[in-house]
Amino acid sequence: MSGKVYLVGAGPGAPDLLTLRAARLLGEADVVLHDALVHPGTLALAARAEKIPVGKRCGRHSSAQRFINKRLVDAARRHRVVVRLKGGDPMLFGRAQEEIAALEAAGIEYEVVPGVTAALAAAADLGVSLTQRGSARSVAFVTPRVAEGEAASEWARTAASADTAVIYMGAGDAARVRTALIEAGVEGGMPVALVESASLENSRSIRGTLAELEALATARGEGPVVIVIGRVVAAASETLPMEAIGSAIAA
Amino acid sequence: MSGKVYLVGAGPGAPDLLTLRAARLLGEADVVLHDALVHPGTLALAARAEKIPVGKRCGRHSSAQRFINKRLVDAARRHRVVVRLKGGDPMLFGRAQEEIAALEAAGIEYEVVPGVTAALAAAADLGVSLTQRGSARSVAFVTPRVAEGEAASEWARTAASADTAVIYMGAGDAARVRTALIEAGVEGGMPVALVESASLENSRSIRGTLAELEALATARGEGPVVIVIGRVVAAASETLPMEAIGSAIAA
Repeated sequence: MSGKVYLVGAGPGAPDLLTLRAARLLGEADVVLHDALVHPGTLALAARAEKIPVGKRCGRHSSAQRFINKRLVDAARRHRVVVRLKGGDPMLFGRAQEEIAALEAAGIEYEVVPGVTAALAAAADLGVSLTQRGSARSVAFVTPRVAEGEAASEWARTAASADTAVIYMGAGDAARVRTALIEAGVEGGMPVALVESASLENSRSIRGTLAELEALATARGEGPVVIVIGRVVAAASETLPMEAIGSAIAA
Repeated sequence: MSGKVYLVGAGPGAPDLLTLRAARLLGEADVVLHDALVHPGTLALAARAEKIPVGKRCGRHSSAQRFINKRLVDAARRHRVVVRLKGGDPMLFGRAQEEIAALEAAGIEYEVVPGVTAALAAAADLGVSLTQRGSARSVAFVTPRVAEGEAASEWARTAASADTAVIYMGAGDAARVRTALIEAGVEGGMPVALVESASLENSRSIRGTLAELEALATARGEGPVVIVIGRVVAAASETLPMEAIGSAIAA
């Protein structure tokens, strides 16, 4: 007899951007295995659960992922309700398929609870719709982090093809991101916005152009960053609560 | 003195996939202007609000959008808390920028509350991660609905370039979608899944190949459909709760 594992999206950061279903499951959970970046206010909803931090923020190794898979299976064999709480949405850059495969191999029941992904929280913070009727009808979510053996710039071609692109986990590698996008055909003058700690009280936005990306990224702090690229960024009103760092760099 | 307008994502359908913040705002709302497809259980959270259905499910015209913009501005001039409740996330295929522009022009304060978008609910229902380490590092969300004067197949090039693509509002035009994607270079044998009424109790999934898309789409019902295309669809386990219609058509 095994328990059930819920792969739950914790949303972009703010505890009240969790879904009602996720909040209920956290309240029922016997054990919660959570990503490093989950907000303490979100974890507090799992009042009676044992809370186990898993997953590194950067540079996750396969061995670490295999260890997480094993802990999930072990937890389901000992508990009725197991929550695997992942930042954002589980099915987007969350390595959920590896965990699902491990659960299926062990014959353990699971359910996925979707969440609000960081790109959408960033769009909300910016006041910028990622699509716009008549001008932006496609959005790409990409990451420049590639595994061994992968083509290093395939993500850039997809981002260049889309009307709007959102880059996850790319701010730490801004020079390479800029170069790859320009080589893929994006103009250096294309508007970009970096959004740090989207949805949180200390959320910050920096705006500029693709050519300035490296300089813009140096102004960021310690929070997670998504990069939004596309004409929609410029279309947004100048009255948005943006910081002036981008313009300062450009000046 | 004007009230404040909250552009709120209602999520993919299931009332408990609403965010905690959205639920709180609905409870505080004086008036709610909502899309046609919002679940009655979600609207019920707005216990004390006047509820005004706006927006057509299909074939929205600019005049209708202008009328919605005007109603939003009018509502903010008469009420303290106005919620504009949109299916999924407001910033993805929701024409939010037009409403934001109208609010800014009228000097009305607004805030965007992100939501769970249909693509992520579909991925959860399918048990398919849209990204997969080492094989799928880019996801495109596109719609084949184009406005007058737009290039008719630009969306298809973006979808073809991405490792995984999710097509919104495309099932009613399946033959054209299939042709455009194949012309853009996607193989006819590429795995696809149609997910209808994602996240709801009557959610249904049909799986097959791109070449079969038109036949698969004829098997759908009245609910909203997203189409997921990419190798990740095949990578998912055969033990998923899928209907066998796709295989039946292929046989």
